[in-house]
Amino acid sequence: MQNFISFHDVDDLDFLVKSALEIKKNPYANSTLGINKTIGLLFLNPSLRTRLSTQKAAQNLGMNVITFNLNNEGWAIEVNEGIVMDGTSSEHIKEAAAVIGQYCDVIGLRSFPGLTDREYDYADTIINKFVQYAGRPILSLESAILHPLQSLTDVITVEELKTKSRPKVVLSWAPHTRALPQAVPNSFSEWMSKAEVDFVITHPKGYELSNEFTQGVKIEYDQDKAFEGADFIYAKNWSSFREYGKILTKDPAWMITEQKMALTDSAKFMHCLPVRRNVVVADEVLDSENSIVIHQAGNREFAAQAVLTEMLKGM
Amino acid sequence: MQNFISFHDVDDLDFLVKSALEIKKNPYANSTLGINKTIGLLFLNPSLRTRLSTQKAAQNLGMNVITFNLNNEGWAIEVNEGIVMDGTSSEHIKEAAAVIGQYCDVIGLRSFPGLTDREYDYADTIINKFVQYAGRPILSLESAILHPLQSLTDVITVEELKTKSRPKVVLSWAPHTRALPQAVPNSFSEWMSKAEVDFVITHPKGYELSNEFTQGVKIEYDQDKAFEGADFIYAKNWSSFREYGKILTKDPAWMITEQKMALTDSAKFMHCLPVRRNVVVADEVLDSENSIVIHQAGNREFAAQAVLTEMLKGM
Amino acid sequence: MQNFISFHDVDDLDFLVKSALEIKKNPYANSTLGINKTIGLLFLNPSLRTRLSTQKAAQNLGMNVITFNLNNEGWAIEVNEGIVMDGTSSEHIKEAAAVIGQYCDVIGLRSFPGLTDREYDYADTIINKFVQYAGRPILSLESAILHPLQSLTDVITVEELKTKSRPKVVLSWAPHTRALPQAVPNSFSEWMSKAEVDFVITHPKGYELSNEFTQGVKIEYDQDKAFEGADFIYAKNWSSFREYGKILTKDPAWMITEQKMALTDSAKFMHCLPVRRNVVVADEVLDSENSIVIHQAGNREFAAQAVLTEMLKGM
Repeated sequence: MQNFISFHDVDDLDFLVKSALEIKKNPYANSTLGINKTIGLLFLNPSLRTRLSTQKAAQNLGMNVITFNLNNEGWAIEVNEGIVMDGTSSEHIKEAAAVIGQYCDVIGLRSFPGLTDREYDYADTIINKFVQYAGRPILSLESAILHPLQSLTDVITVEELKTKSRPKVVLSWAPHTRALPQAVPNSFSEWMSKAEVDFVITHPKGYELSNEFTQGVKIEYDQDKAFEGADFIYAKNWSSFREYGKILTKDPAWMITEQKMALTDSAKFMHCLPVRRNVVVADEVLDSENSIVIHQAGNREFAAQAVLTEMLKGM
Repeated sequence: MQNFISFHDVDDLDFLVKSALEIKKNPYANSTLGINKTIGLLFLNPSLRTRLSTQKAAQNLGMNVITFNLNNEGWAIEVNEGIVMDGTSSEHIKEAAAVIGQYCDVIGLRSFPGLTDREYDYADTIINKFVQYAGRPILSLESAILHPLQSLTDVITVEELKTKSRPKVVLSWAPHTRALPQAVPNSFSEWMSKAEVDFVITHPKGYELSNEFTQGVKIEYDQDKAFEGADFIYAKNWSSFREYGKILTKDPAWMITEQKMALTDSAKFMHCLPVRRNVVVADEVLDSENSIVIHQAGNREFAAQAVLTEMLKGM
Repeated sequence: MQNFISFHDVDDLDFLVKSALEIKKNPYANSTLGINKTIGLLFLNPSLRTRLSTQKAAQNLGMNVITFNLNNEGWAIEVNEGIVMDGTSSEHIKEAAAVIGQYCDVIGLRSFPGLTDREYDYADTIINKFVQYAGRPILSLESAILHPLQSLTDVITVEELKTKSRPKVVLSWAPHTRALPQAVPNSFSEWMSKAEVDFVITHPKGYELSNEFTQGVKIEYDQDKAFEGADFIYAKNWSSFREYGKILTKDPAWMITEQKMALTDSAKFMHCLPVRRNVVVADEVLDSENSIVIHQAGNREFAAQAVLTEMLKGM
């Protein structure tokens, strides 16, 4: 595996999912595969699950880990080409990426969108320039528009916990106080639409995701109807793609409640976390037996380890 | 040892002290005990000694270490239950603790008090919620009200350097420019009152600690009298417990000087550090031969390692 | 090697350069030399290359690495002696250094100058107090006035890529938007003047470096003339030493361009990075085949590893 920045970097999803579930049984079976290999984990934004689970996964494989808060601990990065750098940025991404590539065998990178300029965000500039200039495999730790480690985790989790051969999986928009990226729902849609599931997205009008990631996916604007017979409810807020970065509604009627969960076929409740309680989802759902959010977060480690294993095998 | 958040988590203090002094002779004797075990060191506040010594201790045992500045590098944490999270906090401590517990075999946590709401601080909410929700052993790296790794270090240091079978140990309040927590004196009193020492606390009126931690301890309001015949002077500032979080006096007459040390039986000078020179203690005391503050700080490593050894043995 | 804070700590430059180039061929040949040794990497300022390359080098040798942002993650440090610490500083450097020395076998430290008080900066107070109080070998990660790991790298890189037995090396001042330290040019001059090269410095009048570091070095105020026949052009901005910390000119005529490089003998272009594109150097130079800045940055790892190897051998 050269890079892992989207679904398209995966040759064989089925194999990768099986590999992750094998790793889960014995995370230390390959504890020398990464000896004398270094992964740099670069953060331009906050991270809890991704940071800890990827560090853990790399250490399970014997890798050395360098975590680095690129902007805070290093230099402010310029991404525009051909620019006269007489402003606040001290270092161009061309040099930053290439230099980090000198020290790291794999580079993980987290870079959120600004949510003001859709064209810029959807070019996914920072991660793509790292791919272009670093000369090393790039592992997305969530880019401006995609979060493939989360989506691989989600596919694994559904595979692990499903009780039907073809479960119904519903991605439901939910309200939030702040404007959030589309990375998780974009990725979730891209991955889930290729998995052995009946996949439905429900959201208020105006919250349509880029059709680059939702082609062929059923959109159901009636949340109650979408929940009927569902086996997995995946809640997530996102800001509008069409009216880019805007909050069109905070309608609390879209919050995931016990009442709504009662419409499903005893669905498991999923969320990528962090989640705002009683805004996105009611306490009674999150604290119920059917909530698998912690189990799901735990699987982040094995998803990351499966991907790193593939990368290391190719070295 | 399940958790290490107070004196009450210790079964056998004598054994733990002896174990730390054994470890000090050969810190690498157990360098494979922690293989394939991960400790997360979570900081909500600054730390030098605790951060470095605990990381060192864990690495001496072969553990993987993940350090994480929870609020700066992760998400702002909500601790109230049942709340509608429409404010500045992005993640509830229920999820944060449980998720970190998925990746870490031991969780170290530092969380200082706000010093405005005594009831809230003394509930020691953050560390207790980690105990409740993380599902993993919790190691206090100083909580709102206790600092047991420091106190274990202090017991070890007195044991190591005492020249009498039952030395006189004096905890002396000293002035400071800022309002400081009661965690160190609370813990010191809790631990020292169970050690084989004559223990006295001296402080200005109004600085009485919570009697939860000072039961049976002799309080002497006359600092000079308290110092008479002392073998160890342990200086520390704290803010008032009674008038919670307030500075009642900055009286420089309470600073530890050569003159005051002359009242003792050539006492060793101790402080947990960091210490403000010529406010808490005069240069000539801190720089004297009887000052053991650096030696004491060095023992932090072995105290932490003794505790981690017990935790790992139980896994 | 006791410390590595300036050229004067090197016994045998030739040996150190050869050692680094040997290490480059097989960085893992000595991967157990540093077992059970800990290096603390302390940062008071931003760092990318130094942070990552030194961490990598230490890990190549089997060392444990503790990175620590001293002021942000620890306590604000006081450096003045005899002071009453009733201000914003919480901990004196005497204690900080000595305590860190309890946990670390080697201490790396980065501390930039304030560029307002020349006498203070050139006393190189912070690193010298660490040397005085830590009781451990100190590795400069760039001090107020010197950056020896960079200069060792630069000597290695010239040695590795030269095509003549005695190449001409030109250090050229270049414009910049901000006032920068003199550490890199000071060190470069100190080291390069002892190497087997013809060494010339070119800069506008008023930018003379401290003659402590430029004794016997040819200064050529005409940049074009300096470039004639050059084999290596090393660009770097610095603020004035004479009018301390001031920017005397931002004259764009001093920017390194293709036209200027055409005056040389197909010189390689070097810079320590980070570099501001089209301010210090034109894109077409930095992106040309003769630009070796990434290769040079890559050598930082082997320079650091050669130094750490010497330090570890002496333990």
